[in-house]
Amino acid sequence: MSTVRYAETAHPLVDLLNERWSPRSFDATAEISEAQLTAILEAARWAPSAANFQPRRFIVATRGSLAFDQVVSTLAEGNQPWAVRASALIVGVAVTTSPEGAAYRWAEYDLGQAIAHLTVQAHAEGLHVHQIGGFDPAMASDLFSLDAHLVPVSVSAIGFVADAEQLGDRFAARELAVRSRLTLDEIVLHRS
Amino acid sequence: MSTVRYAETAHPLVDLLNERWSPRSFDATAEISEAQLTAILEAARWAPSAANFQPRRFIVATRGSLAFDQVVSTLAEGNQPWAVRASALIVGVAVTTSPEGAAYRWAEYDLGQAIAHLTVQAHAEGLHVHQIGGFDPAMASDLFSLDAHLVPVSVSAIGFVADAEQLGDRFAARELAVRSRLTLDEIVLHRS
Repeated sequence: MSTVRYAETAHPLVDLLNERWSPRSFDATAEISEAQLTAILEAARWAPSAANFQPRRFIVATRGSLAFDQVVSTLAEGNQPWAVRASALIVGVAVTTSPEGAAYRWAEYDLGQAIAHLTVQAHAEGLHVHQIGGFDPAMASDLFSLDAHLVPVSVSAIGFVADAEQLGDRFAARELAVRSRLTLDEIVLHRS
Repeated sequence: MSTVRYAETAHPLVDLLNERWSPRSFDATAEISEAQLTAILEAARWAPSAANFQPRRFIVATRGSLAFDQVVSTLAEGNQPWAVRASALIVGVAVTTSPEGAAYRWAEYDLGQAIAHLTVQAHAEGLHVHQIGGFDPAMASDLFSLDAHLVPVSVSAIGFVADAEQLGDRFAARELAVRSRLTLDEIVLHRS
């Protein structure tokens, strides 16, 4: 069984994007190396941001650490069974204001970009990323003592893909479903 | 003069990320092909999003079109002199609510991801991208008759890099400045 599920594109994409998908079937025994972890964080670090404000922070927890279990505890019930198999969980945190209290208009937008860059580097490292919105940000803030201007926005489960069968009936069908997107015509409002 | 300004990374990044930067010195005569434009939009299209809601839309304008001049007119005065040289301008639009009016929590985050994927594909196509926050979103909404739930968030200037000298004194120094970022220690709140 192939676990690579290429995007059906109207124009060929570079492999790192074309091969990217968001698995739930992580290998619960595989470990991410410190070098891989640093590489994906460097990718996030060098992502662009409005006026180079870099309004993004990261809580990084590898499987086996207390922090990993804490992040798992913030996840919605439906995400815990598969996310617990990831090699690392990274909480993406938006810095919503400057030290002077001025709002950063692009904090969440720029956090999204940074996680996207992290994802691309992860694929170059043989890893896959599945981002999770279903978690309790207030609980995460509390567990990691975040100031009010630091807002947890996503949790990225990062690891190595294993057979979908291990997921059991609840998730296996979703895991193997064909990827779908709106058409270009539906997302391009104007083109000239 | 080299116009490639590699990121100084603590760990090597894949070339498509390492070589990426945001120029102002676009070649005002170079044209983006329809195939290139489609490729970068496909990259945005296939980016991940929360629950696959895909809350992002794009206004695509190539230099020479009326829409291009309209997008230029929305830019802050400091961005117009260089952005007008880009081969294309793409307005990134967040879909902030569902058709039923429910807020999309990750609309801006997911738009940022889509533009990041577009940027990676652009580099694979020999293009560079410089995102702009300094523009008038209300003016853009008006010019392109956007419904209230569609919020313009960024304008991406996309084109081919030319010598920085053509920019003149006002921008050339900034163009050649060393790229900088916060350190990993500054952006990683916890790692274990």
